[in-house]
Amino acid sequence: MNTDDIKYLDNINSPDDLKRLDESELEPLAAEIRRVLIDTVSQTGGHLASNLGVVELTIAIHRTFDSPRDRIVWDVGHQAYVHKLLTGRYGVFSTLRQEDGISGFCHPNESEHDTFYSGHSGTSVSASYGLAAANMIKHSGDYTVAVIGDGSFTGGLVYEALNNAGRSNSKLIVILNDNQMSISKNVGSVANYLTRIRSKKRYVRMKAKMELILEKIPLVGHRTAMALFRLKTHLKNLFYESTIFEKMGFRYMGPIDGHNIDLLCEALDTARDIDSPVLLHVKTVKGKGYDYAEKDPSHFHGISNFNIDSGEWVTGGDTFCNEFGELMCKMAAKDKRITLITAAMSLGTGLTKFSEQYSERFFDVGIAEEHAVTFASGLSKGGMLPVFAVYSTFLQRCYDQIIHDGAMQGLKLVLAIDRAGFVGDDGESHNGLYDVAFLQSIPDITVYSPSTYDEMRADFVNAFYHDKGVTAVRYPRGGETDVPEDYVPSFGAYDIYGSRRSDTFIVTYGRLFSQAAKAARELMDGNIQVGVLKLNRIRPIDPEAVKAVLGAGHIFFYEEGVRSGGIGEKFASLLLEEGYRGTYEITAVNDCFVKQAKVGRLIEKYGMDSRSMADRIRKLKATEV
Amino acid sequence: MNTDDIKYLDNINSPDDLKRLDESELEPLAAEIRRVLIDTVSQTGGHLASNLGVVELTIAIHRTFDSPRDRIVWDVGHQAYVHKLLTGRYGVFSTLRQEDGISGFCHPNESEHDTFYSGHSGTSVSASYGLAAANMIKHSGDYTVAVIGDGSFTGGLVYEALNNAGRSNSKLIVILNDNQMSISKNVGSVANYLTRIRSKKRYVRMKAKMELILEKIPLVGHRTAMALFRLKTHLKNLFYESTIFEKMGFRYMGPIDGHNIDLLCEALDTARDIDSPVLLHVKTVKGKGYDYAEKDPSHFHGISNFNIDSGEWVTGGDTFCNEFGELMCKMAAKDKRITLITAAMSLGTGLTKFSEQYSERFFDVGIAEEHAVTFASGLSKGGMLPVFAVYSTFLQRCYDQIIHDGAMQGLKLVLAIDRAGFVGDDGESHNGLYDVAFLQSIPDITVYSPSTYDEMRADFVNAFYHDKGVTAVRYPRGGETDVPEDYVPSFGAYDIYGSRRSDTFIVTYGRLFSQAAKAARELMDGNIQVGVLKLNRIRPIDPEAVKAVLGAGHIFFYEEGVRSGGIGEKFASLLLEEGYRGTYEITAVNDCFVKQAKVGRLIEKYGMDSRSMADRIRKLKATEV
Repeated sequence: MNTDDIKYLDNINSPDDLKRLDESELEPLAAEIRRVLIDTVSQTGGHLASNLGVVELTIAIHRTFDSPRDRIVWDVGHQAYVHKLLTGRYGVFSTLRQEDGISGFCHPNESEHDTFYSGHSGTSVSASYGLAAANMIKHSGDYTVAVIGDGSFTGGLVYEALNNAGRSNSKLIVILNDNQMSISKNVGSVANYLTRIRSKKRYVRMKAKMELILEKIPLVGHRTAMALFRLKTHLKNLFYESTIFEKMGFRYMGPIDGHNIDLLCEALDTARDIDSPVLLHVKTVKGKGYDYAEKDPSHFHGISNFNIDSGEWVTGGDTFCNEFGELMCKMAAKDKRITLITAAMSLGTGLTKFSEQYSERFFDVGIAEEHAVTFASGLSKGGMLPVFAVYSTFLQRCYDQIIHDGAMQGLKLVLAIDRAGFVGDDGESHNGLYDVAFLQSIPDITVYSPSTYDEMRADFVNAFYHDKGVTAVRYPRGGETDVPEDYVPSFGAYDIYGSRRSDTFIVTYGRLFSQAAKAARELMDGNIQVGVLKLNRIRPIDPEAVKAVLGAGHIFFYEEGVRSGGIGEKFASLLLEEGYRGTYEITAVNDCFVKQAKVGRLIEKYGMDSRSMADRIRKLKATEV
Repeated sequence: MNTDDIKYLDNINSPDDLKRLDESELEPLAAEIRRVLIDTVSQTGGHLASNLGVVELTIAIHRTFDSPRDRIVWDVGHQAYVHKLLTGRYGVFSTLRQEDGISGFCHPNESEHDTFYSGHSGTSVSASYGLAAANMIKHSGDYTVAVIGDGSFTGGLVYEALNNAGRSNSKLIVILNDNQMSISKNVGSVANYLTRIRSKKRYVRMKAKMELILEKIPLVGHRTAMALFRLKTHLKNLFYESTIFEKMGFRYMGPIDGHNIDLLCEALDTARDIDSPVLLHVKTVKGKGYDYAEKDPSHFHGISNFNIDSGEWVTGGDTFCNEFGELMCKMAAKDKRITLITAAMSLGTGLTKFSEQYSERFFDVGIAEEHAVTFASGLSKGGMLPVFAVYSTFLQRCYDQIIHDGAMQGLKLVLAIDRAGFVGDDGESHNGLYDVAFLQSIPDITVYSPSTYDEMRADFVNAFYHDKGVTAVRYPRGGETDVPEDYVPSFGAYDIYGSRRSDTFIVTYGRLFSQAAKAARELMDGNIQVGVLKLNRIRPIDPEAVKAVLGAGHIFFYEEGVRSGGIGEKFASLLLEEGYRGTYEITAVNDCFVKQAKVGRLIEKYGMDSRSMADRIRKLKATEV
């Protein structure tokens, strides 16, 4: 994109600059923003379709409200690119999702206009209500605006929040950005027409009176009966559409055309004047303004870099995710009990093919991880063999359900945990660094962390047919990494590579085995003897694995996850209880949130790459001499 | 109670026996069941009011359905006492909630009629839909019935489940047991009348036709206008009441009088014949049939033993819970930022007085722990100092929110964790054994586990004014336990009691310090030197605390919580990394779910009492000699 084309964004450093533009300049600005979005994301990857859909809405919000005094909270911050462009970040927008660049989500450290970091969906209404309640306590007149997509409404957190906020008199405005990806579609043209009236201030004041009039529309008669019946049906639909929110105490406005800036500004202006929480229903087109994205919004939701003209994106080769999907299809063909559950991630977890081939045994529950696990427990009790395929970071949401509905009942559940470990560009909220720590606290659970596709397949066989209760198989984003040719896996609970009688051992699991094996190879080539204890089943740890290294003088534990509560700490306790007398050192993610960067770079940064491992051991050997 | 009065229950060993009774015998049976409930719970303690409310409903369910082929799932099993009495457990009912006795919740190990264990609320619809989906896959014609109270409807899990189940054609019947504790009350007498019609099979078949007729009721005219308007309003209310469920795909029936067995049987019979999921709305009176409970259902919800004639219950003395409530009132008087949040547990967490004195800074969010934390994050961002008071076992539900909305944002949040450790009579689902393990995995979190009221107060001062980010203070159910008179707390991160230069140390925290100090006292009186390292702040552990015991030859770690991922394992890793060369042994709850028994008994059973501690060390000393 030629930056000479940029007419507006160069001069917009804050919402104040936006407010100074003439109304006639807003549509050209919207067009310019779309060009920048498409151009940038085609190079950096990221979330495109959702941002193309909220261009006008974001302009209207920043024209109407006074951020940061008024607080704008974006549910799942990946719909906030336009917000970033309008709040002083056009100049650095090309660094989107790059190491040391701007985040793909809202980020309070990045701008005073980014109220909350949110990588997980459904948090905006709760957080906004908290802000609004604080404003009430402080008797502040400031507004809080939550912008939330209809997809997030499949999650219970939103329901809990609406249920609470509606009872308050807080200055809270919830904007439902409905791009028809999940909420019912039964609002027709009459409703749209009525909406124009509804969004007028007059209507709001006269609501009671109007409802009275509507009550009195007669539906008997001759000539206009059918037309009136249709109108009434539409009114009823509108009523349906609004009643959930109104029952919860919100004033409902909408639906509004989300690509009409005038109308949006008018509606937001009206919403400001209402003395109770407002739900403003806005209809937008996901991918708006870029043909390929409008036609296939799911693929352009979160995407790697792509060709603007052809709409073609870079596709990866084999991945754990794809291998998992293939495996499930094969196993389901033979075992009719196998059922797959996803929380709105069928594409992301590699289950597209399964969902087509075995639709009766496939359940997409929406963004509802808690329900997914309890539902799976019910399937299990009913004799099925349920597999919940989920990203590590989202599994955090169902810790209680795994304990209470799965493990405590002794039910057979399989957790297929994708994106375990570093995930890269998505940053803090998406790294899968906690699953090992929180899962290992659950009684009787079994957890595997394979290093290769072959091991993953073997682990699922164990999970399905040999282990009892809840069993998890966790694997990283992307494909398998190199393992040495002379490594022969046993497909057991652990393996040892390199020198079995070495005084020095690296202990690790999952993806890091590749780094450890490389380090060991290198060290052994330099005549430094070292062994690698590779755990495949990380819970419970095989006592033989502990014994295998008990006589060593030095053990280095590497863990692509949090140190605190992790396997490195557990391994220490097992060694100590068995009388180990050597040195011990854990390298893991210790008390920090891991920022965005490529996965390989993160492995280096946290000292888990083969070079760091080898250097550490060379240094030790040097001091011993 | 004189068992000679028992006419029916002695002969009811299964639902089949119940089915054999004549209709005329059902009301006397209901009366008999109520007498048994009141008599037993007055002695054992337990949940009374909710069970008194479902006597007729439970009879109707077991008359209509064929358990265990049809599956009955009770949401929060503490409303299932009547179910227990009707499924062969009258003979052992007096052992309710006692060690080795029957559980206060449903328990699959106890009876084939207890489908799911459920101590946490809101799980029944998800679990039932899982069972129903399994039946669909297996082409079974069996029914699944979930019975759920209106209170549980404040939780998002129920919403997620309804949202999913409604889309299916499964044979699922959800019975909403509405005892008016939370759901709106706008269903009047006309609606009740209509319900009688609605529950007829004929009505169900003719629904479309009737709706058409209702559409055509004219509201213009002269004489009957007002009466018709009132009728229409009621119809609309009914519509309101039903529409949430109908929008989600359920067929709505109700509300039904939940104390009329005939009507209930008729309605359930109708529900069986409907080819889509049904929501049957039943209205019951909590505490029905026992005056004191009807008048004060909250107190008779979960209660210790009480006097039947006076309705007076045994009240405990000081507890951590009460001390916490008093402390919050005092601190809030001085600091206007302090806000308290509870998830439907204001009484249980000691906040009744606070909720009255500082109502504008008190938020009961319903049974919605996830929302509670994200909402608190919003309050914090808005400048408040939010405290979420919650039982340890329910905190499990917001692990992700603590990470994603609290810790990752670096927001100041205080978690006041009640019922940490063993809780006793409520059994497996209610023990607070996981909070330490899952909290310690969260970056930068601070966790205190005080042993005395004084320490708890000091810890909250730290949490409010000295520590950053998310800080938790966890304390047990009940009151403080004895500490030796010569123990002088430092109110720092740790203390040492007994011999500082001993070769043998007990390391522990929280309530167990009382046991450890007693053991140490006893051993020292017998000339065995021993020190107790008592951790007050368990995360992060003060490096000085580790150094203090580094020279010891023997360390025994005692933890009233899970071993896996707990502080005992962490302490081992810190010792090992610092070069500790002695022996180490962890005593904790290891890979099991802890069954109901008195707390003191559990401490003994798991080897954490002073005698076990002292014996362990005496044995060690004997082998050394």
